[in-house]
Amino acid sequence: MDSTSILLEANDIPTQWYNIAADLPKPLAPPLGPDGQPAKVEQLAAIFPPAIIEQEMSRERWIAIPDEVREIYRLWRPSPLVRAVRLEKALGTPAKLFFKYEGVSPAGSHKPNSAVPQAYYNRQAGIRRLTTETGAGQWGSSIALAGQMFGLDVRIYMVRVSYEQKPYRRLMMQTWGGEVFASPSEMTETGRRALAADPDNPGSLGLAISEAVEEAASRADTNYSLGSVLNHVVLHQSVIGLEAKKQFDKIGLYPDVVIGPCGGGSSFGGIAFPFLGDKAAGDRRAANLRCIAVEPTSCPSLTKGTYAYDFGDASGFTPAMMMYTLGHDFVPPGIHAGGLRYHGASQLISMLYHEKLIEAIAVPQLATFEAGILFARQEGIIPAPESCHAIRAAIDEALECRETGEEKVILFNLTGHGHFDMSSFERFFAGKLEDYEYPQDAIGRSLANLPRFD
Amino acid sequence: MDSTSILLEANDIPTQWYNIAADLPKPLAPPLGPDGQPAKVEQLAAIFPPAIIEQEMSRERWIAIPDEVREIYRLWRPSPLVRAVRLEKALGTPAKLFFKYEGVSPAGSHKPNSAVPQAYYNRQAGIRRLTTETGAGQWGSSIALAGQMFGLDVRIYMVRVSYEQKPYRRLMMQTWGGEVFASPSEMTETGRRALAADPDNPGSLGLAISEAVEEAASRADTNYSLGSVLNHVVLHQSVIGLEAKKQFDKIGLYPDVVIGPCGGGSSFGGIAFPFLGDKAAGDRRAANLRCIAVEPTSCPSLTKGTYAYDFGDASGFTPAMMMYTLGHDFVPPGIHAGGLRYHGASQLISMLYHEKLIEAIAVPQLATFEAGILFARQEGIIPAPESCHAIRAAIDEALECRETGEEKVILFNLTGHGHFDMSSFERFFAGKLEDYEYPQDAIGRSLANLPRFD
Repeated sequence: MDSTSILLEANDIPTQWYNIAADLPKPLAPPLGPDGQPAKVEQLAAIFPPAIIEQEMSRERWIAIPDEVREIYRLWRPSPLVRAVRLEKALGTPAKLFFKYEGVSPAGSHKPNSAVPQAYYNRQAGIRRLTTETGAGQWGSSIALAGQMFGLDVRIYMVRVSYEQKPYRRLMMQTWGGEVFASPSEMTETGRRALAADPDNPGSLGLAISEAVEEAASRADTNYSLGSVLNHVVLHQSVIGLEAKKQFDKIGLYPDVVIGPCGGGSSFGGIAFPFLGDKAAGDRRAANLRCIAVEPTSCPSLTKGTYAYDFGDASGFTPAMMMYTLGHDFVPPGIHAGGLRYHGASQLISMLYHEKLIEAIAVPQLATFEAGILFARQEGIIPAPESCHAIRAAIDEALECRETGEEKVILFNLTGHGHFDMSSFERFFAGKLEDYEYPQDAIGRSLANLPRFD
Repeated sequence: MDSTSILLEANDIPTQWYNIAADLPKPLAPPLGPDGQPAKVEQLAAIFPPAIIEQEMSRERWIAIPDEVREIYRLWRPSPLVRAVRLEKALGTPAKLFFKYEGVSPAGSHKPNSAVPQAYYNRQAGIRRLTTETGAGQWGSSIALAGQMFGLDVRIYMVRVSYEQKPYRRLMMQTWGGEVFASPSEMTETGRRALAADPDNPGSLGLAISEAVEEAASRADTNYSLGSVLNHVVLHQSVIGLEAKKQFDKIGLYPDVVIGPCGGGSSFGGIAFPFLGDKAAGDRRAANLRCIAVEPTSCPSLTKGTYAYDFGDASGFTPAMMMYTLGHDFVPPGIHAGGLRYHGASQLISMLYHEKLIEAIAVPQLATFEAGILFARQEGIIPAPESCHAIRAAIDEALECRETGEEKVILFNLTGHGHFDMSSFERFFAGKLEDYEYPQDAIGRSLANLPRFD
């Protein structure tokens, strides 16, 4: 019985993250402040520790992973690389399907890969408290876990509608010692203003970000942490792809196609960038490598957005970054892959897509659940709705191989399990989920509101 | 960085289960039918396939695990053996704490270890459908998963109150293709009678068992499956301890104490019996081995029950077995460790306890949640309430070592994660959980109803 699960030992956890900024065809355009001038370090220093700011700006190819971070990583890392043998058989494909399973983390997703170093660097800088926002709760639970590991207090502003409708993620945060408030809250000026205007305000990710940033900016002992989009987050997630490379080396294979779901971009970048690094280094095995970012048709920032300067948050709080965007005030339909409901894509992914070094596709919601259920029935694991997007794309690639007879090696990022998303499956089984047309009008309106600095 | 997680390859999955019936000080007393005579194979043949009946009766020490079963096992096995280094530090104990983590299975517990072979042997016998009962849903989801793997239809009778209050486990079963009915249901005579008497009947495990058995007994293409108590279930779970032994060999250690939560007994027996087998074989390392079954004070079948013949189910449907019991109609308080709310203990565990070859302790509910939360904050994993019982006992052993200075090696069975039990944690945090006194009166009443065959 040959192993379908390719395992590594704790000593195999990478000692360095890979920073693709070192291999871009040209430097990233600088983030711009309200005045239209490049954002200054001082502005970031109010909410981020020095090490994070340095990583955000760095063009060093390799950045050391502190031992303290690897000590925590090994609570669940290295994560398994699994060959989906039963799924291959069910599809009747000659392709070899592999998934990197990040759902083994205590929080059930890839998010702790960045939450842990963010907590570490803040602790190192003498910070005692972290604030953040969370929608469905994946990031909030990850930062609660990470804060607990390094003795930091964590306050999470959770979008009120999720706070009320998804109590289990909140309980996870509390189990790890996190302090969770429904946003808008009475804790911040932003929150109080929102509640004054509408006491029943259901909240939004943009509003929660604003509350978390306001509190962090106003307290010397407190910093802010973000779970995706920014360069340092994508950097930390490179541990996924770096491990996968070691695992493929172990079995003497190399992927032809690498697939990841794409919201802000950290899970896609995390698995794909280390392989793109091989390509940049002229590794022959990567010569024809394809990397595919998969987004929902309801929030198609790469496939339907514009490459322009836009804010990272809905309320225009953050510096403006050059990225593919649907407009910072674009509000996507209420699809169940909460992690993919972001208006833009990370600067790194945006440039690589603009330079045609990666591909992107958009898939409709129902097809992703169908793919996820087929996967669950063959491989056992019930995937998160975000992960179902990658599964959909991987299955479609594998079915194409059935037609062409190609024995492609396909790798996808199974970013998390769906244990806290079963209500989405309930709605799917009940026939209550729908596909959303590409929201042309909404996107048009929001694109009209891009920031102008002239 | 030395590894805290001791991993094995798929090839290390045991090829044989260990059957402790071969090493008992005396043969088990035979199960008795309604007539007080030893139950006949024909009676079992109506609901179980030949291979299962053979395993139930077998005194062979080693029983081969079919390759088809190992093929499915390797979707999540071998499960990790983890040294809880952070917990050790937090406790300031010289003891070495190890846990075998069974929550890595798709269903999130150890239950699929028996669900998979049960599905396989039924399929092999030409059976097309399986029925079972489930309370909280751990077993139901495991048999739904296993049925899917071997192309069997699965019908699960889920205690109505759980069906309504715990929809997520039900959705898991449906995701894996299982058919779930609230019990009492209109599908069986038993169910219809119960509903006629009380349309709002909330159901009970005993009632659900009766419905599942009635349907299986009345259809030639359908068999019944049980998730604990019986000898063949405990046999299948021995894969846990057998793997743990290989993992300890890998690091040159051997446990001084083995701890498992104990309801029906399959999770305790699964981890402890292979080590007891070493002891029976005269292995010096096991000379002073202690094995501790941990039960809730609210349902203390071993520590407060009577060693006598009693029925396996609440309604007296099954043959009577010689076991420690609180009486088959004993109804324990509504504690949150649903898997430990069983009135008796497996015949095997009962005899070993009666012969003083294993120990048993009862722990109160609140102390188990406190232990589980401490564990979650140190090791990350949020444990199931059942597992919290083993964690409590392991922590207490480790604290004792802090006093005595002993560097004991303590192994406990982390039988599952708590992702579907977060509402229990919510009640704990809200101060709504309570401890239950040892229910003397209730036990007295139920013990007065033990079956008599004279």
